[in-house]
Amino acid sequence: METEFIAWLRQRLPPHPQLLLGPGDDAALLRFSGRPECLVTVDLLTDEVDFRLSESDPRRIGRKALAVNLSDIAAMAGRPLAAVIALALPRTGAFELATKLYEGMLPLAAEYQVALAGGDTNCWDGPLAISVTLLGETTERGPLCRSGARPGDAMVVTGSFGGSILGRHFDFTPRVREALILHQRYELHAAIDVSDGLSLDLARLVNSSGCGARINTSDVPIADAARALAQSDGGTRDALGHALGDGEDFELLLAVPPDIARRMLAEQPLDVPLTLIGEFVTEPGLWQIDAGGDVRPLVPQGWIH
Amino acid sequence: METEFIAWLRQRLPPHPQLLLGPGDDAALLRFSGRPECLVTVDLLTDEVDFRLSESDPRRIGRKALAVNLSDIAAMAGRPLAAVIALALPRTGAFELATKLYEGMLPLAAEYQVALAGGDTNCWDGPLAISVTLLGETTERGPLCRSGARPGDAMVVTGSFGGSILGRHFDFTPRVREALILHQRYELHAAIDVSDGLSLDLARLVNSSGCGARINTSDVPIADAARALAQSDGGTRDALGHALGDGEDFELLLAVPPDIARRMLAEQPLDVPLTLIGEFVTEPGLWQIDAGGDVRPLVPQGWIH
Repeated sequence: METEFIAWLRQRLPPHPQLLLGPGDDAALLRFSGRPECLVTVDLLTDEVDFRLSESDPRRIGRKALAVNLSDIAAMAGRPLAAVIALALPRTGAFELATKLYEGMLPLAAEYQVALAGGDTNCWDGPLAISVTLLGETTERGPLCRSGARPGDAMVVTGSFGGSILGRHFDFTPRVREALILHQRYELHAAIDVSDGLSLDLARLVNSSGCGARINTSDVPIADAARALAQSDGGTRDALGHALGDGEDFELLLAVPPDIARRMLAEQPLDVPLTLIGEFVTEPGLWQIDAGGDVRPLVPQGWIH
Repeated sequence: METEFIAWLRQRLPPHPQLLLGPGDDAALLRFSGRPECLVTVDLLTDEVDFRLSESDPRRIGRKALAVNLSDIAAMAGRPLAAVIALALPRTGAFELATKLYEGMLPLAAEYQVALAGGDTNCWDGPLAISVTLLGETTERGPLCRSGARPGDAMVVTGSFGGSILGRHFDFTPRVREALILHQRYELHAAIDVSDGLSLDLARLVNSSGCGARINTSDVPIADAARALAQSDGGTRDALGHALGDGEDFELLLAVPPDIARRMLAEQPLDVPLTLIGEFVTEPGLWQIDAGGDVRPLVPQGWIH
């Protein structure tokens, strides 16, 4: 089916000024526009782990497979350039499934000017697996890494957290534009995208940076979906717990010099709110400060692969 | 297990001069050394299709997953630069399996100076699937495409064909060095790597180039394994049939101007033999010419995905 599928796809791929050679040869050929640097990231999404094919529109699954990679490039403050996509498809209905996955990817690729440069489309006796590799370019400000947070930096997040399982894990906005705007206008020290849980990804960021962090739990922006989930949970986890540990929010978590953060928060330059939720500290580890001022260790929670 | 696995892997990754930021951030950062062009290819290998995990050393599987991508970059006459690897691992014994797969990849990556730049390592209830994306650079001679064959060009191949299932499909040498030498020293018009079958990949090359081809079947270099397989087959397919249709030879099939080809064949500049097996013609389609001079249509055979 791969030959027919490539024919189907080539009719739907818009030209891209930086894609010199697209699907149909042994490799694709891209041209970089500026700096001789390339960002590259890969995410593999599998049935019953990252989505349930039996319950979900394949277009939403396809969209998510590209969007999670866009979020990784956003976390590096890069410009997405091109994706290659490998599919392992169950044999029954493989062609139709492949086209629907791409119907979910194509609009998002167009929105972010991502060239779908190539792929590998296979059938097998296993469940659906989708691997997307995304290439990006750095801006003249260079990449934004996990390792740059310094004690005293403000901890700033985009958007709100928790309950993404109710739908947002499919339909989230990868913060590509937001990251580029912030990186252009402000001095930022570090960033990570919250894919596995706010507290868990915060732990990764401080671990990379060799510092610690204190989070003011009453300042964490809690998504409506987190409150809805807490109500339906029967009390096993409150809304804050969902916000700190659910994952798949795909919001940005930033380390920003405090004076810069004050200006950024006052200016609110994005369509999505920026919120100060804590600060980075010298002592390694995570702490939570309650509304009453009590300080307790924060155990990172989230999705462990 | 991903955190432990990344820790294991980082201890085994040699530094690479063009890998500015390796595994451990949201994306890897690479620096291109020369031209602002990037080759990118992806291959997804799955259990019971491309290998049998139950019967094979995972190290050979890991090696193959990288080698098939090296072969694609070779077909474009590119220099491999960096790979990102996505694994979907069965839950039982996932860590051990992941390390063995990488133990097969690491020596090949070192041999071809490929940076293992990043990856995504997941467990699931499905069988093993391995997606490798390989980035490469073009040389100052530019890329070599499938589409450049012209009527009158000689059809030249590296190595021999058929019977790779007896072992060579794991242990083949991707023709990276060979392609770079040939592309540097001679004018080449087109190339493809024979992954799915000599006749099938030839059909793809002429289809991309808008021409046809005549193959002298008595000149096709037949691998010993193809003869062994034909003998054990009980006559269902002869050795030539295996050479024309088995696939996974990962040899180069080249279109070369006839005068250049004469020089190339006389000089034999590679450690592996170069053989003239036919010519490209104006009329679309494939023909085979027997030892007696009879011309018949050649039906492409090979592995259809």
